[in-house]
Amino acid sequence: MENTLEKRILNGIDARRNDIVKFLQDLVRIPSTAGDEGQIQKFIASSLQDMLPKVDVWEPNINELKLHPAYSPVEQQDYRGRPVVVGILKGKGGGKSIVLNGHIDVVPPGPASAWKHSPWSGDVEEGKLFGRGASDMKGGFAAFVMAVKCLLEEEIQLNGDVIIESVIDEEQGGNGTLACILRGYKADAGIVGEPTNLEVHLAHSGSTWFKVKIEGKAAHGGLRYEGVSAIEKAIQIHDALLRLEARRKRSAIHPLFKAYPNPVPLNIGTIKGGVWPSTVPEECVMKGRIGYLPNEMISSVRRQLEDCIKQTAKKDAWMRRHQPKVEWLGLWEASEIAPGHELAKLFKTTYKKVLKRKPRVGASPWGTDMRLLVNYARIPTLLFGPGEMRQAHSVNEWVRIQDVIKATKIIALTLIEWCGYQD
Amino acid sequence: MENTLEKRILNGIDARRNDIVKFLQDLVRIPSTAGDEGQIQKFIASSLQDMLPKVDVWEPNINELKLHPAYSPVEQQDYRGRPVVVGILKGKGGGKSIVLNGHIDVVPPGPASAWKHSPWSGDVEEGKLFGRGASDMKGGFAAFVMAVKCLLEEEIQLNGDVIIESVIDEEQGGNGTLACILRGYKADAGIVGEPTNLEVHLAHSGSTWFKVKIEGKAAHGGLRYEGVSAIEKAIQIHDALLRLEARRKRSAIHPLFKAYPNPVPLNIGTIKGGVWPSTVPEECVMKGRIGYLPNEMISSVRRQLEDCIKQTAKKDAWMRRHQPKVEWLGLWEASEIAPGHELAKLFKTTYKKVLKRKPRVGASPWGTDMRLLVNYARIPTLLFGPGEMRQAHSVNEWVRIQDVIKATKIIALTLIEWCGYQD
Repeated sequence: MENTLEKRILNGIDARRNDIVKFLQDLVRIPSTAGDEGQIQKFIASSLQDMLPKVDVWEPNINELKLHPAYSPVEQQDYRGRPVVVGILKGKGGGKSIVLNGHIDVVPPGPASAWKHSPWSGDVEEGKLFGRGASDMKGGFAAFVMAVKCLLEEEIQLNGDVIIESVIDEEQGGNGTLACILRGYKADAGIVGEPTNLEVHLAHSGSTWFKVKIEGKAAHGGLRYEGVSAIEKAIQIHDALLRLEARRKRSAIHPLFKAYPNPVPLNIGTIKGGVWPSTVPEECVMKGRIGYLPNEMISSVRRQLEDCIKQTAKKDAWMRRHQPKVEWLGLWEASEIAPGHELAKLFKTTYKKVLKRKPRVGASPWGTDMRLLVNYARIPTLLFGPGEMRQAHSVNEWVRIQDVIKATKIIALTLIEWCGYQD
Repeated sequence: MENTLEKRILNGIDARRNDIVKFLQDLVRIPSTAGDEGQIQKFIASSLQDMLPKVDVWEPNINELKLHPAYSPVEQQDYRGRPVVVGILKGKGGGKSIVLNGHIDVVPPGPASAWKHSPWSGDVEEGKLFGRGASDMKGGFAAFVMAVKCLLEEEIQLNGDVIIESVIDEEQGGNGTLACILRGYKADAGIVGEPTNLEVHLAHSGSTWFKVKIEGKAAHGGLRYEGVSAIEKAIQIHDALLRLEARRKRSAIHPLFKAYPNPVPLNIGTIKGGVWPSTVPEECVMKGRIGYLPNEMISSVRRQLEDCIKQTAKKDAWMRRHQPKVEWLGLWEASEIAPGHELAKLFKTTYKKVLKRKPRVGASPWGTDMRLLVNYARIPTLLFGPGEMRQAHSVNEWVRIQDVIKATKIIALTLIEWCGYQD
């Protein structure tokens, strides 16, 4: 049963549809790959300042982050010009507080020629808004901001605080959210706006990035039998890692992850070997990620990968003497909250009010900043956002505009119930 | 039988040993990878100007080069600041002329950490001079210059002209030597100072560079089964190319190439795929070279490689619809001269005078600028220089100083016999 206030909010969001699309287009049109988040954070800070009494903008101190066990090693060791932005809406008092967390960094779009629309176009076609980050996760972030904006414009005063976190560097590990935690932001619950296709995700798998460096022996290509191709050796490792993936897929079992053909993919994402077409390549580096479940230990997952590489090297005369070197890069721990948590239950109610059906409850197939909020700030958090999961990191990424609107509505209704309100 | 003049020359070269080492060190200490040959050419121009009445320094016109069938496509389409340098010693008249051709560009050294001495050190240890280009082919070029310098300092006047060509961009194809041909430099014979380990090479194999671009389908690494890894597809092509190499090795037969375990290596020198560790790689590019013999047709060699890739793609459902794209880059044609050529015979005589034994006669296992002089300028040319072939393009490249001295001596005696002289 919708009450009058809820109707007003839902109608208000429908009436603001163009503003919501415009805001999301603005976000998508500002490129914001890791290291290059300055411009978008400036835009977001200014947008939040227009609607909220308090906006906190600061550049994280990398040395402080490094002292934390959840620090993610990153190549660009500097946050100058790449601030975190937090907008704070103080409640009247007596209500529960909530964090709405979204990352505004995106992964590189790859060759632009592969895209139908430019990766930074924000073009709308057949109800879809296109661009890198449309799903992952500027769509979810837009829903957060616009839900709060609508409540403010409708002059609904919340009792509990709402904290909107626009974080950087999530795609490389999550140091932006970690910086929020170190700065002291805390709440009774949290939502991270990852693309869940409007499902409610109470868990997510983890992943850890690795780098394998394989040595060869250079020689002129015309005498290539005098050298040892690091690319050929890397291929042996690559093949062995795919066999490891197949073994892990068979043994990975968790009730929230049943929907996935493989909840623990091992992806070799980049390879780079050699310096010259007619020189035998003397070095080859592969980087990738290995997924794991909340019911696995990261240390044992890493050991499986290291052992796999060691065993492969053992079978090769060259690699026995020139061991491939494994380095662990980013880590996104897995995390989960109890299916019976109060926020999860509330979501089911508001979801039904907006969409007239129960939400699908499940888990996300990748690491997210939820883990930092759950495991380190002890903020019970779930994942919810528009955008299909398969759009994330894909060419021609898009988000369905209708889903952004639906998410905005569900968030708005959840906020008034969670925080309490005065009309 | 050495005569007095020959003795004077050989002793003169021994007396100049330190100057020769110093000159080669100077050359090795100036990095000169493709595109970056400006500084070394300045140094060489100035060195030649100190000893020769005429030095020609000019920046090749790429548009003019492109009109020539032997033009090598290069990425950096500009020779500004990268001149060719030619020193001319006019003979008194009545003698045969000769071109002494050497390239001073070198291939990239790869990771400096793999080198014992810095790649640009020129350090001397146990009679070896270390550095990128020491063998390929600053050693041979130093022998040319120092042989001529010695004759000049000994006041021996030659009858025929000597043309010393210091060329750029050989490692990417040979546009520097082509520029010399277009500028009109011509002679009765030629020597290219490639590292032949003091063997006399009357032929060399050819090679052509290729680039294969393989398409995949991007997806988030956590849903990698929704994507198609371009790296995995590239590995299928890589493996097929190695099988092609094995087939070609069995069928490659030429009398001058008997010494080589495989006279036609197919080297995959570089691989680059993917943009992000947790994104399924949607593009992978491999670059390499395929070797061939003077008795093969380049068109048929290229067809073999193209067919191999096509056949491999045919067996794969994804590649059938997303054909790998092959592009042909540099071409170094094979070439050979008749074993009975006058210069080849003279070399046997002067070789015996210096080293008291007959030279080994054979062929070089890679493309060289000899092909341009032989096939396009119709200058009968052979390859001769210090430096072991396996040093070329290798880590810790070195040249034996004693071999540079020996080469200098053989060149000097060859010059006086070939050109004729007045003492």
